[in-house]
Amino acid sequence: MKHVSSRDNALFKHLKALTGSTHQRRKAGQSVLDGVHLADAYLAALGQPVSCVVSERHLDHPEVAALLARIDEQRVVVLADALFAQITGVVNGIDLMLVIDTPAGHLPARIDTDCIVLDGVQDAGNVGSILRSAAAAGIQHAFLGTGCAFAWSTKTLRAAMGANFHLNIVEHCTVEMLAPRLAVPLLATSSHADAALFDTDLRGPVGWVVGNEGAGVSAQWMALVQRTVGIPQPGGLESLNVAAATAVCLFEAVRQRRG
Amino acid sequence: MKHVSSRDNALFKHLKALTGSTHQRRKAGQSVLDGVHLADAYLAALGQPVSCVVSERHLDHPEVAALLARIDEQRVVVLADALFAQITGVVNGIDLMLVIDTPAGHLPARIDTDCIVLDGVQDAGNVGSILRSAAAAGIQHAFLGTGCAFAWSTKTLRAAMGANFHLNIVEHCTVEMLAPRLAVPLLATSSHADAALFDTDLRGPVGWVVGNEGAGVSAQWMALVQRTVGIPQPGGLESLNVAAATAVCLFEAVRQRRG
Repeated sequence: MKHVSSRDNALFKHLKALTGSTHQRRKAGQSVLDGVHLADAYLAALGQPVSCVVSERHLDHPEVAALLARIDEQRVVVLADALFAQITGVVNGIDLMLVIDTPAGHLPARIDTDCIVLDGVQDAGNVGSILRSAAAAGIQHAFLGTGCAFAWSTKTLRAAMGANFHLNIVEHCTVEMLAPRLAVPLLATSSHADAALFDTDLRGPVGWVVGNEGAGVSAQWMALVQRTVGIPQPGGLESLNVAAATAVCLFEAVRQRRG
Repeated sequence: MKHVSSRDNALFKHLKALTGSTHQRRKAGQSVLDGVHLADAYLAALGQPVSCVVSERHLDHPEVAALLARIDEQRVVVLADALFAQITGVVNGIDLMLVIDTPAGHLPARIDTDCIVLDGVQDAGNVGSILRSAAAAGIQHAFLGTGCAFAWSTKTLRAAMGANFHLNIVEHCTVEMLAPRLAVPLLATSSHADAALFDTDLRGPVGWVVGNEGAGVSAQWMALVQRTVGIPQPGGLESLNVAAATAVCLFEAVRQRRG
């Protein structure tokens, strides 16, 4: 366990750079998990972090103590309270964060299981909610095209509530990268759809293409889509949040696949 | 059409107070709809606003002109660009906002159609997404208990994308207010549920109680719930965003009621 109380300490400077800048986190290949919930989810799914940073004042907090018992002692860094306050984005929370090596996604040679493809989903809350629904529905792969919110940003991580640690997440995917590997049909929702979602056979593995909040799925991804499906909306508004619509689709597949 | 170019103008001062403060909007019983999409949705659903505020530079913008053609001319206020910039929350958008009298929700004597009850849903984005899903699913009433985000805040309105104008929204609801009026069974999701959502008969009208993001449905509302349902989550995470889970429930009811 290291104790750090000087703002000139090299480790504190590194933490401050990481927490303050997405660019620094990408460059270092590291992510920051703020709060006990995300830390617990990470430890349960993926094991030891690079480091676990806590404040002096919360070192004996019962939830912190329970987490520290699961972490190698040499990975624990105790910061003076004033220093911790400089790096956390959480107000009134428990002062604990993990620094982790951002899990490297892998592009399978053959994609033959359920997956989602995010095409220009810009809002980090939506990306996080979609990852969370996908992990809950038992999806393995999340392929993020250009224009999506960063899957490992603070806001996405918070919205995904640990789903990042249960999915194979590949960012910067292009049509050219995925097309030759796809062995599942791609589906997308559309208000001018070929069929209603509930009339579509979803018992086999499929990939869902989820488009931008305003513009929907772009033409280049739509060219790969084999079937468009519509979500019947009896209220007549024809308007659903992209994460809500994705949840409806993913769990209709769950329903169809039950015993 | 009024033109306003002085920051000392009484109308501008009123607009600045309204746009700058939720408290002022509540006090005045007015809401502010920022942007052409919300304005279009309001005009289509509920008719004339109190006023329509545009900037000089966007007065001839085609989308603005198309909206202004639908609004009584004496309700239109043209602000000098520098003044409009002081009251808008939208960057790089089209400079148009409506000031409206916030629709007054009504508590029916007998609640015998589909409804949702929001119990401590704190995030405005979640409240907005739930209202949007509810309107799309054809729900009539949204009853918001204490501790919910304000249904008419800028962020809720933006997330709800016009759903506010298609629902009867009643805020500050209590168990005591609703209980004697309820003629539909209340359901809630739970990870320790009586039955799976997909095994639950949803063909008749129901009310869905949606709980707080962290703590779920409070004990006082849970006392009114007749049945808890679980959303099967084969991924094993048992974790869904509250708006995503609500969409799954509402559209399972839509599915069961088809043809």
